[in-house]
Amino acid sequence: MRQFLVVGHDAPTDPDFSLDDIAGGAGRLDVLCRCVNSAFFLSHDLREDVQVHLVLSDEYTVSFSGADLRRLNPDERSTAALIRGALEEKREAIGHQPVETSPGVSLYRMGFADTFERIARDATVVQLHEDGDPLPEVEPPENPLFVLSDHHDFADPETDLLADATDRRVRVGPKRLHADHTITVAHNYLDTDGYERY
Amino acid sequence: MRQFLVVGHDAPTDPDFSLDDIAGGAGRLDVLCRCVNSAFFLSHDLREDVQVHLVLSDEYTVSFSGADLRRLNPDERSTAALIRGALEEKREAIGHQPVETSPGVSLYRMGFADTFERIARDATVVQLHEDGDPLPEVEPPENPLFVLSDHHDFADPETDLLADATDRRVRVGPKRLHADHTITVAHNYLDTDGYERY
Repeated sequence: MRQFLVVGHDAPTDPDFSLDDIAGGAGRLDVLCRCVNSAFFLSHDLREDVQVHLVLSDEYTVSFSGADLRRLNPDERSTAALIRGALEEKREAIGHQPVETSPGVSLYRMGFADTFERIARDATVVQLHEDGDPLPEVEPPENPLFVLSDHHDFADPETDLLADATDRRVRVGPKRLHADHTITVAHNYLDTDGYERY
Repeated sequence: MRQFLVVGHDAPTDPDFSLDDIAGGAGRLDVLCRCVNSAFFLSHDLREDVQVHLVLSDEYTVSFSGADLRRLNPDERSTAALIRGALEEKREAIGHQPVETSPGVSLYRMGFADTFERIARDATVVQLHEDGDPLPEVEPPENPLFVLSDHHDFADPETDLLADATDRRVRVGPKRLHADHTITVAHNYLDTDGYERY
């Protein structure tokens, strides 16, 4: 399975934001929505063997599971609506018990560290980092967990945790990309399995 | 220069659509907006040496020029607003003379064939096609023009024109991707120049 953990530092934790302003008032939720798109969509198909975890301001995490996902559309607005719908039920997420708010979409009352611990156990943790090894030089892991940040750099506690827990540091190219574009490149790399003939 | 020509078969030609419904009533304009995002955005930077041409229902073409672009933001809604703004001035696009409707954004009264003729002259025409050669086996051209379709296949006249005019047919991987993801992979390929050490 391929997992993507995306840290949204300014993302909303209340459902009172407007879908007309997800790139403004909703703390750049558009960035996270595009990551969900890149992680799941193929042309006229969905990647079932993928999970995406969006950390919202270190308080909540919305997890998307490709095997169970329904009602996901490619546009940012409808994905933001799914996230807003999850936050509308946040009172139901008690302790570390999640609440499934739409098929394949669950809300956890967990910040970055708890989510990381929950999902990293059987995974190879891959940090996307500008000083990492070039992607083509890295043997594709079987169960990668890619950890990415939104439009901000990782915060210090996140950096510290990742310094201990990362199995591989990788960069996807000579240019710094948006998180969603990085996901697309990582998928393509794994799809083509080291760029042998396909 | 890298150019991307994206054919929007259902895209609006009137500015009377709602920004709240770009994935529905506005003929999947969201697909084209994501292509603009993938073509131009780097992390905290813009690719200046890029042009994107969106063909709208074979009647108009909106061209974005990275060297002159201002006011482009990554989210779909604001890009849709730029396209709507261009269509609001369509009466000013007389004959083949474009009208610049925002810095770096011009509207042409041209469909696919005329736009293709306008932009293909000094370019290597690369058609993304599922029967094409794998991207890593193709020497990166200096001035590529990538021709892509939205969520539909190319229409017959487009296919015929491309059959004659295409220099290379390429596929980006074993899976069929959305147009915007294809652009991201193509950029990454050109950035890393055949995956030598970067």
